[in-house]
Amino acid sequence: MKPFTAVRSESVAALGEVELIRRLGRWLAPVSPPSPRGMGDDCAVLPASRRPQLITVDPLIYGRHFDAGLAPERAGAKLLKRNLSDIAAMGGRPTAAVIALTLDPRVRIDWLRRFHRGLALCARRFGVSIVGGDVAQANGVLAASLTLLGCSTGGRFLERRGARPGDWIYVTGSLGASERSGHHWSFTPRLAEGAWLARRAEVRSMMDVSDGLAKDLWALAPPGTEPALEGAAVPLRRGAGLAEALGEGEDYELVLVVGARSPRAAFERAFKRAFPRTRLSCIGRFERPARIAPGSLRLRDYHGYEHLR
Amino acid sequence: MKPFTAVRSESVAALGEVELIRRLGRWLAPVSPPSPRGMGDDCAVLPASRRPQLITVDPLIYGRHFDAGLAPERAGAKLLKRNLSDIAAMGGRPTAAVIALTLDPRVRIDWLRRFHRGLALCARRFGVSIVGGDVAQANGVLAASLTLLGCSTGGRFLERRGARPGDWIYVTGSLGASERSGHHWSFTPRLAEGAWLARRAEVRSMMDVSDGLAKDLWALAPPGTEPALEGAAVPLRRGAGLAEALGEGEDYELVLVVGARSPRAAFERAFKRAFPRTRLSCIGRFERPARIAPGSLRLRDYHGYEHLR
Repeated sequence: MKPFTAVRSESVAALGEVELIRRLGRWLAPVSPPSPRGMGDDCAVLPASRRPQLITVDPLIYGRHFDAGLAPERAGAKLLKRNLSDIAAMGGRPTAAVIALTLDPRVRIDWLRRFHRGLALCARRFGVSIVGGDVAQANGVLAASLTLLGCSTGGRFLERRGARPGDWIYVTGSLGASERSGHHWSFTPRLAEGAWLARRAEVRSMMDVSDGLAKDLWALAPPGTEPALEGAAVPLRRGAGLAEALGEGEDYELVLVVGARSPRAAFERAFKRAFPRTRLSCIGRFERPARIAPGSLRLRDYHGYEHLR
Repeated sequence: MKPFTAVRSESVAALGEVELIRRLGRWLAPVSPPSPRGMGDDCAVLPASRRPQLITVDPLIYGRHFDAGLAPERAGAKLLKRNLSDIAAMGGRPTAAVIALTLDPRVRIDWLRRFHRGLALCARRFGVSIVGGDVAQANGVLAASLTLLGCSTGGRFLERRGARPGDWIYVTGSLGASERSGHHWSFTPRLAEGAWLARRAEVRSMMDVSDGLAKDLWALAPPGTEPALEGAAVPLRRGAGLAEALGEGEDYELVLVVGARSPRAAFERAFKRAFPRTRLSCIGRFERPARIAPGSLRLRDYHGYEHLR
């Protein structure tokens, strides 16, 4: 569905801000608590939190993260799921979100309705309350920025740092061909897996793969090491080659580090029992350059997605 | 300063995302705690909060909220202050923020540096940590969306609802001519006043004036009433007439409701002692239409700023 319309009566300009915000409230009603816990005041009031919290922000921009070929419901869900993947990457549980919309006056009301319907269904599925937001106008723009809060699921948070030389690198699911396969909108954020992994002593650090392993994995590498991967072990999505799996991005999988001396076989068995349908692959380890075996795949030969290039 | 440049070496495209994020970290260093409390991981980790919290989000968009005539430092401070005004309006204290940037690749590095310098100085002044964010690309756009968290200052939060028929309407500072006078960027968010007012039993409800009193004040009106104002009591900024004071917006003042039977003189004296330099004006009361005196100013005759119109 094309998000812009030349017919004024079908556009958000025909509603104006006050009526648009009223409709946003209706569209989000299933996941939007009453004021002051939700929309309708200067701020939303959130309950006290006995546990440490998480915060992350990610946008969805027309022409960058989706186009007219993607159903609005799927775009709405994708906005939230991009953020959920960041909460999953720390082993957290999502709680509440606010959304800042930036709209051209020609944005179609019906597009926006369907976008919020997809967003609300996804929010309900993952237990997220939409507690507030903002609507602003900018010509030629259709963008939404979502800020998501989360909390601990009981254990620690898994950070990016924590790996040591010799540690093993694992990845969930499969990589590459995300755009072509529709994975970029159809993926399930790895919240359950992330929470489970945060409770396992074997796991030292974790992140999600969003810009491609070739770019992202460096963030987990202990100083003085680099990832030495076994090319054949990298789990490829159907239709993807190794370069696509390492460099395309939008995988929204978890990449995690398991201690060098951890009982790996028991860890892998326990994961398989907990998540029989989620693939978990050991793809290599962090090594000092001098120790890297000649046949290893060197990540420096591949490139991830870099914004603003 | 013009935010866009045709010289590639001066633009963010010459940096690329990774180097840009490194510089953002440097520019924000005075107010940016180390990871995982700040930038650098999938989410930022926030401490547990024993008190209820506040959350609000407001953007700053080139061409809407500022133009090339505004110094970048002032634009950066304005982004934060717009949000601080929402925290002030509930009587809260700001704590932490995340920022989503949307940038055309031609955005000038030096513009962005100065923008973040202004933002960081303002954040330090008001005790706000900048804990994370996101950078995305969109052609022709220069926009930043800031999500701000806050907490209670000890008492309750002041909501928009709570007024009763006959209650008095007060406003801080003066209204109108915000753009012309530079008030729209030079204002001081009323955080101290808001926190003080939230501890006063006389005050029933409060909000900030951002789209003009003529639009905003309705949100405080008890059902079945409307604001009956005394035109001569509305505090005008130098150079502003009544229509501008009621309709222009960007005032970032507090409008609050004091109970009909409250000891008003004592309340006003106490405010004056606490804030000798902040004007506080009683401008009218909420009345049932039948009880409104013939000479009263009727807010329906004026219009506030409505977005998307």
